[in-house]
Amino acid sequence: MTLEEIGEIKLIEEISKIIQKEDKRVLVPVGDDAAVCVSPRHNTVLTTDILVEEVHFKLDSILPYQLGYKALAVNLSDIAAMAGLPRFALVSLGLKPKTELKWIQEFYRGMMALGANYDVTVVGGDVSRAALVSVTATIVGEVEPELLRRRNEAKVGHRILVTGKLGAAAAGLLLLDSGIENPDSELIQAHFFPNPRITEARIASQEGASAMEDISDGLAREISNIARASKVGARIFTQKIPVAPGVKKVAKDQNKHFLELALAGGEDYELVFTVAPQKVGQVASSIVKKTKTLVTEVGEIVPKESGVLLGNDDFRDFPLDKLGYNHFKMNNFLR
Amino acid sequence: MTLEEIGEIKLIEEISKIIQKEDKRVLVPVGDDAAVCVSPRHNTVLTTDILVEEVHFKLDSILPYQLGYKALAVNLSDIAAMAGLPRFALVSLGLKPKTELKWIQEFYRGMMALGANYDVTVVGGDVSRAALVSVTATIVGEVEPELLRRRNEAKVGHRILVTGKLGAAAAGLLLLDSGIENPDSELIQAHFFPNPRITEARIASQEGASAMEDISDGLAREISNIARASKVGARIFTQKIPVAPGVKKVAKDQNKHFLELALAGGEDYELVFTVAPQKVGQVASSIVKKTKTLVTEVGEIVPKESGVLLGNDDFRDFPLDKLGYNHFKMNNFLR
Repeated sequence: MTLEEIGEIKLIEEISKIIQKEDKRVLVPVGDDAAVCVSPRHNTVLTTDILVEEVHFKLDSILPYQLGYKALAVNLSDIAAMAGLPRFALVSLGLKPKTELKWIQEFYRGMMALGANYDVTVVGGDVSRAALVSVTATIVGEVEPELLRRRNEAKVGHRILVTGKLGAAAAGLLLLDSGIENPDSELIQAHFFPNPRITEARIASQEGASAMEDISDGLAREISNIARASKVGARIFTQKIPVAPGVKKVAKDQNKHFLELALAGGEDYELVFTVAPQKVGQVASSIVKKTKTLVTEVGEIVPKESGVLLGNDDFRDFPLDKLGYNHFKMNNFLR
Repeated sequence: MTLEEIGEIKLIEEISKIIQKEDKRVLVPVGDDAAVCVSPRHNTVLTTDILVEEVHFKLDSILPYQLGYKALAVNLSDIAAMAGLPRFALVSLGLKPKTELKWIQEFYRGMMALGANYDVTVVGGDVSRAALVSVTATIVGEVEPELLRRRNEAKVGHRILVTGKLGAAAAGLLLLDSGIENPDSELIQAHFFPNPRITEARIASQEGASAMEDISDGLAREISNIARASKVGARIFTQKIPVAPGVKKVAKDQNKHFLELALAGGEDYELVFTVAPQKVGQVASSIVKKTKTLVTEVGEIVPKESGVLLGNDDFRDFPLDKLGYNHFKMNNFLR
């Protein structure tokens, strides 16, 4: 079996089989957004992400400052998904020998600019020659045991909420790929400078969120992950999805359905979380009040037998878990 | 300035300038073998290393089991260099779509085999498509504040000690590159399966070692690092260097001086540490008694004005800090 045959989820399952072991210090092992390890006062939260040239970015269409910012942002978003606070970062770079020093300086400046917002310190890293540029960032964070939120605590009847608006990053990427370069476009900005929702996640957790994920691979895939881990189903209502301004127009221009961008486009780095019905008002108003970030109820948790569906006449039977990234199955790639 | 012009040390200096900031939680920032962060009970030790196809390994000359073992070993060696204990690992892989699942399974089996010796748990990672295979492992470890050993505490008069024998890994690589493949060769085994000296480092620290590093880039470069950080000089005595059996023959066959392999070959992953003269006997006998690992006194710390030298008639004025790896300056590469 090759990777392109089995796909990423199966690959991770296979790896998990090999590396899993009993370890009381590991509260959350491989399989969630980040790992959580018991430490004396708080729990340590660990996550890592790899970005590879020609797969995640093209060197001639991203500035090093943007790449540095984004390499950190995608990791911070994983820490946010656990309701954690990021603390330390390690960054390993594969670099071409003819790379200008200025490029690398700009890369780190972008990273530091975001890190400064969240008290993140870069404490290590490694560099190597490589034929193609790659960036691997690892974050060490912490989370109070009572605030930690996983994927597997969604209950039937809980409402599904998302922060912000969806589809902007995917639409921005489409714009870039089609050669329309308007750096002032909010869609392109959304693609390059996602906001990790660390503060929003902390508030959601304090106010009673049950399960939580960041939306890195599209809402469809993330809610499917929550449903699978929680052994429940889910129904998203098409008309409730907060679609970012401009996404419908870009989708139409590119002959795509806007829901493909909003549900499967990925890289929005918003949060999706579940909460008991009686707490919806409180959690939403707390987040809006303290962060000005929009919170929208988009659906509800249903029994497992119902599956994971779009609650819309056109799509009623569309199984949402078929949408989303697969880094090895090329035909599932948006890019 | 491009990377091949400035080299790795300068690159890291330049990156350090950008990322450095006051952070009382960071006891040891970028610039040592690993970062150390204050945590409530012990300190957290963090390190990462990247291995890239065609730079650090060739896919057709390393088994995935060997690569997994080695990717962990080089990181554990950095934890050992701080006298730390490794705890958690995160592993990011760049992989070709046509990679066989079996290859990846074997990779992790090699990693787990070594990790089991040191109670290391793999708690996370990431995978991506890539044109060339890359492996980035990050280790989170811990160290008691009183056992932590850095590079900058070597004092004039302290003796320089190394564990094990040197040059074997470099000679093994030469054998592989020349097409002589005898998997039973101890030199080739040394190249593929280095022993991170975690236990030895803990004992050395307990018995009074002042400065310590692992020998990843050759003794010449490591002792130069200690000298620079400690603001002292160093003298290594050629005749005292414990050269691994078979290294002289391989060097001769390949038209190299055996000292090039023993001092600059790199990848031995032994320890070099300094210790006050009156403690040399105790530290050496403790390590030998508890681990059966050889410990050899190879030189001494001298005043900064003396520089870092080989104390041998042929090489008396040879500045040792000119030897060692530079991942961007190809002409300094052993491979």
